[in-house]
Amino acid sequence: MNVLRIALGQVNPTVGDLAGNARLIRQAAADAAAGQADLLILPEMVLTGYPVEDLSLRPSFQQASRLAMSALARDLADDGFGDLACLVGYLDHSDDDGADAVGRPRGGPVNSAALVHRGAVVARYDKHFLPNYGVFDEARYFVPGEAPLVFEMNGQRVCVAICEDLWRQGGPVQWAREFDADLLAVLNASPYERMKDDRRLELCVEQAQASGSAVAYTNMTGGQDELVFDGDSLVVDAAGQLLQRACQFDSQILFADLTATSVTPSSRDDVPVSLPASLPVSLPASNTSARERQPLTPTNTPRLDDSAELYAALRLGLADYVNKNGFTSVLLGLSGGIDSAFVGALAVDALGADRVFGVAMPSRYSSTHSVQDAHDLAERTGLTLREVPIGPMFDAFQSSLHLTGLAEENLQARIRGMVLMSLSNAEGHLVLATGNKSELSVGYSTIYGDAVGGFAPIKDVPKTLVWDLARWRNEQAGSAGSAGPIPPRSITKEPSAELGPDQKDSDSLPDYHDLDSVLEAYVDEDTGASELVSAGFDAALVERIVRLTDGAEYKRRQYPPGTKIGVRAFGRDRRLPITNRWRERPDSNS
Amino acid sequence: MNVLRIALGQVNPTVGDLAGNARLIRQAAADAAAGQADLLILPEMVLTGYPVEDLSLRPSFQQASRLAMSALARDLADDGFGDLACLVGYLDHSDDDGADAVGRPRGGPVNSAALVHRGAVVARYDKHFLPNYGVFDEARYFVPGEAPLVFEMNGQRVCVAICEDLWRQGGPVQWAREFDADLLAVLNASPYERMKDDRRLELCVEQAQASGSAVAYTNMTGGQDELVFDGDSLVVDAAGQLLQRACQFDSQILFADLTATSVTPSSRDDVPVSLPASLPVSLPASNTSARERQPLTPTNTPRLDDSAELYAALRLGLADYVNKNGFTSVLLGLSGGIDSAFVGALAVDALGADRVFGVAMPSRYSSTHSVQDAHDLAERTGLTLREVPIGPMFDAFQSSLHLTGLAEENLQARIRGMVLMSLSNAEGHLVLATGNKSELSVGYSTIYGDAVGGFAPIKDVPKTLVWDLARWRNEQAGSAGSAGPIPPRSITKEPSAELGPDQKDSDSLPDYHDLDSVLEAYVDEDTGASELVSAGFDAALVERIVRLTDGAEYKRRQYPPGTKIGVRAFGRDRRLPITNRWRERPDSNS
Repeated sequence: MNVLRIALGQVNPTVGDLAGNARLIRQAAADAAAGQADLLILPEMVLTGYPVEDLSLRPSFQQASRLAMSALARDLADDGFGDLACLVGYLDHSDDDGADAVGRPRGGPVNSAALVHRGAVVARYDKHFLPNYGVFDEARYFVPGEAPLVFEMNGQRVCVAICEDLWRQGGPVQWAREFDADLLAVLNASPYERMKDDRRLELCVEQAQASGSAVAYTNMTGGQDELVFDGDSLVVDAAGQLLQRACQFDSQILFADLTATSVTPSSRDDVPVSLPASLPVSLPASNTSARERQPLTPTNTPRLDDSAELYAALRLGLADYVNKNGFTSVLLGLSGGIDSAFVGALAVDALGADRVFGVAMPSRYSSTHSVQDAHDLAERTGLTLREVPIGPMFDAFQSSLHLTGLAEENLQARIRGMVLMSLSNAEGHLVLATGNKSELSVGYSTIYGDAVGGFAPIKDVPKTLVWDLARWRNEQAGSAGSAGPIPPRSITKEPSAELGPDQKDSDSLPDYHDLDSVLEAYVDEDTGASELVSAGFDAALVERIVRLTDGAEYKRRQYPPGTKIGVRAFGRDRRLPITNRWRERPDSNS
Repeated sequence: MNVLRIALGQVNPTVGDLAGNARLIRQAAADAAAGQADLLILPEMVLTGYPVEDLSLRPSFQQASRLAMSALARDLADDGFGDLACLVGYLDHSDDDGADAVGRPRGGPVNSAALVHRGAVVARYDKHFLPNYGVFDEARYFVPGEAPLVFEMNGQRVCVAICEDLWRQGGPVQWAREFDADLLAVLNASPYERMKDDRRLELCVEQAQASGSAVAYTNMTGGQDELVFDGDSLVVDAAGQLLQRACQFDSQILFADLTATSVTPSSRDDVPVSLPASLPVSLPASNTSARERQPLTPTNTPRLDDSAELYAALRLGLADYVNKNGFTSVLLGLSGGIDSAFVGALAVDALGADRVFGVAMPSRYSSTHSVQDAHDLAERTGLTLREVPIGPMFDAFQSSLHLTGLAEENLQARIRGMVLMSLSNAEGHLVLATGNKSELSVGYSTIYGDAVGGFAPIKDVPKTLVWDLARWRNEQAGSAGSAGPIPPRSITKEPSAELGPDQKDSDSLPDYHDLDSVLEAYVDEDTGASELVSAGFDAALVERIVRLTDGAEYKRRQYPPGTKIGVRAFGRDRRLPITNRWRERPDSNS
């Protein structure tokens, strides 16, 4: 019985870092070889990182990626791993000078997988289905590949697919059936989104059954601007049985042994092709016979629960933004409120307490507990706190400007923003904006005030979920016998921006539970106002929230990037014009 | 001889304003009817405005657009223009439940043209070729139409096309040949870009010859966030002769009389279809016979020269952003330098002097001519100027923060930004950021400082072009016998941010002519560093500019929107990751 031992290299590349990513891949190959694997499957565009956006269109970068791929192939052989076959995602350029049926050129940048063996790229597969929705713009960045790559190794046939290819009918899933492949090897750069991991296993099972092949799903891990890749690589056999599953949000090499199957694809009869007698690429059997290998034990890392998963996504998104951009520390304003307390605790979990700096900036309107709670957070987490009262600066502005009302409120928030940016300039910290998705939706923030920062870790987290995650984080600490990092009063106190006397968020905004319910339907699900009212929401509430949300688009455009966790994050996922007179009204469609 | 009189409705719609846009269309129909036209051709998506971005995906907006289209058809008949056939661009939803060859659903939002006649939508054409490059994301927003719309009127056959359709082989251009159409009626929302108008006439001539049809090209005018539509509607006959051409950057109804042609398409022989004997849609001949009509005189509005065209684009982009977003006035900091002086003069030309407010904010480092030149600008243009010295605010911050170096420089810029935002909050002005493209490229600006604002009128204008346009504007005034609006010293003085003693831009940046030459090649043309050096640029200069440009991506993400005039504007046109370790090096590809 021919056994093919595969290794899935769940690694964390960095966009544009061709040399660093090549080192990661060589280490993964060393680990795979040490584990006696025949074939190593790495993520989509692992050599370049993903998404490279318009870098894909730049000829110098296309060429650099192609050259780095050739050099990597040689280096892998020089490292002694030439017999290990590797599937490596990278950017290439198709020189096809033909055109498709509607006259579009076939040549252009391609999202490719190189099959590397004995020092060379022996074959290339170009991604067939290019996603162009949600956070994806691949119709902008790539031309689609049209040809299958099926190769033979250890008597087994392997068909290659890249990410979106697995989510669609036709293309590689059909080619795997047509070529009677034993394995569908899928390279992915699949961003985290709440609940997506459940769908991912289902999909692998469905496509294993549809193709009659085992499915090896390798995903990257790590953060890239707004996106977090959660790993969760997995292998199912041709019957759809889960064989191995990797961890979430961390690097791992996952092994699986595959035996050639005689499983019939679920509807094999309708495949109208005759099988080719031989494949263009056939790699020699590996030197290691199955009986000499250490047997594998099944790995099935348990899934994180929903809160743990969300928290891990936020932590990794923040850590990678800071580290990949070369910052040694972060700085944030600490108001004693839940948002800044949660971001402070998250930053300490992501980076360590010695890299996190807080500033309490009390004003005449600050409550006594405001500064106390900031100090409590510092004691619980170990972050470094300083105080910079804003009174003298406020007075200096007011003696020139004599502001009242909203202008006076914003002035305070902007002085705080300036203090943070000044300390950032002087000391080199990355400033974190601590706004949540509910605020960002309705524009309850001061542009150039509390909105300043290089990264906004919870910009895609609704307020009610911030509270839930804060409680969860403290409970986790409690179960481990330690004090929670987040001051309990920061969780339980009534939210207030403290920019005016006895101000409460509820003076300006609906109850956060009501607000978040409407926002989930309006923002995440794109439900119109009249449908919201039909679904039972109060018409006046809907009208108010929709109006506030539509009117805040200009603020969101200038807000820092932050980790996407939901189905429709502002920015990459939800793209609306600023100049826009369309106003959803509860009666607009009736 | 059958004459078809067409009218091209070059109008200025607003995104999302279904009611307002319908009023514009009804007025255009009234004008077309008064001019005895048979057929009125309006721009692409004129009823919804363009681009509506993700609004196209929202079911409530799709439905609202469809309902507004039906209502408009009835209203046009009620207005007495039922016999006038109208082609009106709008958003619809294709309910086709089939799929294309690769399994993509045919149903979804469509970028459509409605043929309206006698109170009803009698036929619909869905755009076939969807552009997905540069500023366009239509593969995200629409599904492609697959069917031609060819109809008959006054004995002539009219084939409908939408924008990108005209730029490609196949689709409507081919259908026009196959159906022996007399006219290719093209609805456009084609954004302004330097030199594009020259290409547009060429294209119409080429496609007229290729299709054997006259081409009527209707473009919208007006600003929409970063885009400006320049109008420039035109009609060429089937031989490619220019018949009529409208103005640039303003609304106009353009008329043309077309006679049925027997022109043979340039390669008619290779069309392998037999002509249909009758078309599904045939409209009755108009009541006005050709001999009763007033004859038309050819309109061929002369093209603006390059500088006039650029200035008109910037003026309209600014005016429409302000007006369509409901602002009554703008506010900007006036430093006495060329950028703010130019933007001040532009704003006065766009909005009138009574809507433009300037603030001079001198510091200890400001030159004496700084405030003098701001006053000179105010006198020349009539804008309202006030002075707010920043010394007291600066001292208040410094007594808390004790900043030096770059942090101290940025502090001054940020105090100025806060003063502007405070006055904006208190008085309701839209703040204009006055940065140019050269600064934005290399990050020579202070985030939350001089970068604050709701709109940045010259963000896509390189520094050297700012000087050119300033000189041009003053010369225009001179030719008209009046004083130029821009103080001559603002044009001739050496650029300085005046944030430190005797500071000059040249302390930190290359000469602006050198800088702009490299930036044009690197940013606009995506030329790699080693190619730049091969092209003759100094290697150290290239390395420095590329490094600065790559490192400023995070600042650009938070910069306000501004009018695109070049071939690759930051933001919509040039999309790069922030987290990005790829660094072009002069030797990186050699």
